[in-house]
Amino acid sequence: MKAAILAIGTELLMGQTVNTNATTLSKALGEIGIGVYYHMTVGDNPQRIKETLLKLLEECDLIITTGGLGPTLDDITKEVIAEALHLEMVLDHRSFDIIKERFRMFNRNMPENNIRQAYFPKGAIILDNEKGTAPGCIVELENTNQSIIVLPGPPRELKHLYDTHVKAYLLERHHLSMVSKYLSVYDYGESAVEERLVDLIESQQNPTLATYAGDGKVLLRITASGPSPDENHRLVEGVVSEVYRRMGDYIVSDQGKDIDEVIVSLLLNKKLTLAMAESCTGGKLASALIKHPGTSEVIDSSLVTYSNASKMRLLDVKPETLQVYGAVSHQTCGEMVKGAVKHSNADIGISITGIAGPTGGTDEKPVGLVYIGLSIFGEVYTFENKFTGDRELIQQRAVIKALKLLYDYLK
Amino acid sequence: MKAAILAIGTELLMGQTVNTNATTLSKALGEIGIGVYYHMTVGDNPQRIKETLLKLLEECDLIITTGGLGPTLDDITKEVIAEALHLEMVLDHRSFDIIKERFRMFNRNMPENNIRQAYFPKGAIILDNEKGTAPGCIVELENTNQSIIVLPGPPRELKHLYDTHVKAYLLERHHLSMVSKYLSVYDYGESAVEERLVDLIESQQNPTLATYAGDGKVLLRITASGPSPDENHRLVEGVVSEVYRRMGDYIVSDQGKDIDEVIVSLLLNKKLTLAMAESCTGGKLASALIKHPGTSEVIDSSLVTYSNASKMRLLDVKPETLQVYGAVSHQTCGEMVKGAVKHSNADIGISITGIAGPTGGTDEKPVGLVYIGLSIFGEVYTFENKFTGDRELIQQRAVIKALKLLYDYLK
Repeated sequence: MKAAILAIGTELLMGQTVNTNATTLSKALGEIGIGVYYHMTVGDNPQRIKETLLKLLEECDLIITTGGLGPTLDDITKEVIAEALHLEMVLDHRSFDIIKERFRMFNRNMPENNIRQAYFPKGAIILDNEKGTAPGCIVELENTNQSIIVLPGPPRELKHLYDTHVKAYLLERHHLSMVSKYLSVYDYGESAVEERLVDLIESQQNPTLATYAGDGKVLLRITASGPSPDENHRLVEGVVSEVYRRMGDYIVSDQGKDIDEVIVSLLLNKKLTLAMAESCTGGKLASALIKHPGTSEVIDSSLVTYSNASKMRLLDVKPETLQVYGAVSHQTCGEMVKGAVKHSNADIGISITGIAGPTGGTDEKPVGLVYIGLSIFGEVYTFENKFTGDRELIQQRAVIKALKLLYDYLK
Repeated sequence: MKAAILAIGTELLMGQTVNTNATTLSKALGEIGIGVYYHMTVGDNPQRIKETLLKLLEECDLIITTGGLGPTLDDITKEVIAEALHLEMVLDHRSFDIIKERFRMFNRNMPENNIRQAYFPKGAIILDNEKGTAPGCIVELENTNQSIIVLPGPPRELKHLYDTHVKAYLLERHHLSMVSKYLSVYDYGESAVEERLVDLIESQQNPTLATYAGDGKVLLRITASGPSPDENHRLVEGVVSEVYRRMGDYIVSDQGKDIDEVIVSLLLNKKLTLAMAESCTGGKLASALIKHPGTSEVIDSSLVTYSNASKMRLLDVKPETLQVYGAVSHQTCGEMVKGAVKHSNADIGISITGIAGPTGGTDEKPVGLVYIGLSIFGEVYTFENKFTGDRELIQQRAVIKALKLLYDYLK
């Protein structure tokens, strides 16, 4: 079964709007086992809409169009579909009544043009839109078993129509079932992950294993599809076990969660308090954790001590330590985490100090050198790291590494 | 001149990644007067990539492909283009050396596969990629004057290659001249900006005025194009003056800079030191400033005091103040900023305390209530704000507002 998503709207081609609808629909279709083979975007141009639609119909079983259902004259999706399929456009009185009622409810006069929103290709299944004036519709092609599903462009209306009408329609029509599992891998580069799992990625048709990298995380998606949900589960779990066998130490969540979310849950469950001291990451570690709500019982504070003066003043780092070993050293890092814990009486402390660049590096201490300190009930460990990338990436990698060290202890 | 953007990557079709590259490129092409007629996305499938490419070549003068330049076997963009155009793939030794050097620099072994990134369709112009291992390239079709520009998928690499190579290539090849100016507007909502400038946005053909909103900033782009650079400048400056007349107080940069960057420059120029105390923003204010390099002389510290205990301990907030007025109050906010400044002896202090939600709000103190304190050489001001949105948005808006207050003082 091949599906395509055809977005219609000049604003997309001008770069004014990001086509999140294609992403939303692809994800939703993937979840029920329908593979999307094309995303296409064309402007409000009848000729190009029609040609693209006919081209897609040569290959695809399902086409979902988005956009072009508004009341204005450049909204022509339904008209073009009708023309392409040699169908006439007919007024649906029920839809017209609903649209009129909507205007009445909001005490607004209905512009004459809005009647266009109640016209549909003859024979279409009409999808009521409770979130806007533009109803969607489904045009089923006789003989070929193809469908064209016509949805409005505003993302919340589209999502609403998909959830309330389209999903059930597709499941029933195609007798579908699919199971996916998402594993979050940290501290293991994407290409290294792929190398380690290459046979699973390349050889398997069902389940499939795919990797997605972003923000320091590699997300593995294992998906099985087929008529039996139980069998799908069994297939997925088989691959999941194998992945755990090979790189379980780096898997932080089997629900695709981010490491910061997992850590916050662990802290809350174990009722452990945390204090942080950050230099080169400038508060990024704290904000990664504090972006989650309800953490004030476990997260005490983060001392962002960017200057040497503040390291001495706030964390009791000794002037001699800074002088002899420098701010970026095992010694300073260790004193930083001790200071953070001492002041706060927290169970756990983390400190980060390093050279994020682009300047400030030397041969001995290059850009990317970052020390991370961990204090566990008073016992202090420090770790030396060398990260690559620009300033932002080095900061991000330092934060991810600190979170991974913290996670390793907590789990 | 017709352009199309062809995105290649199964992850887009699975809904794992939003195709922001298409938006970025469309906007960038629009700025230099090139109209985009299609966005297309296909998976890592040679047959479909080739067919889609050939179909686009029937109609378009310029095709930009994104993605499929990685080292792994499913990265096949260049190979498929070469096949479609009957070109052989040849090794570019210079690119190979650069890739090897990149691995050497980062002390990593180069996987054998990476050599694939140094192969290009014969005759291609090669675009060095300083942000990643995948170089881009430009394939010019003889006779037809068409070009295919091949860019990597990761957005920051794509943007970097566009800015450093592609834009200049397109301007030169198509004899375009264009002048743009970017004004950064803060603390003024996008729709309010549009309302204030509606006549300038709607009526003008040259220069054009466009608004882009994101991360709390509204960026205004004023662009004039035409054969004479001087005339373009004159046209742009006319509109810029008019915009300043209407909303100059909210314009933080006439070079499109972010407010945090502007503030860091102001602090460095004026040699003023800054200390921060953050509660509900959890380090986001500090990291917004510390993301810029070379600030350790002016940015002393940020005390992320998330718990009440840490507010008392680190900032000398009085227990009575917390008891009587609560952590989210003018009083606590004022004591926080005093504490931050007292400890650090900094010239300027900022504090933020508020309810970012989603829980913790009351009728009296709803979610979104945020106090911001400013200390200027010992003089303390506190400001009450009510922000809307989810937790992340409220945190972001609080940071932006704090930065705007700081900017207003510094300028």
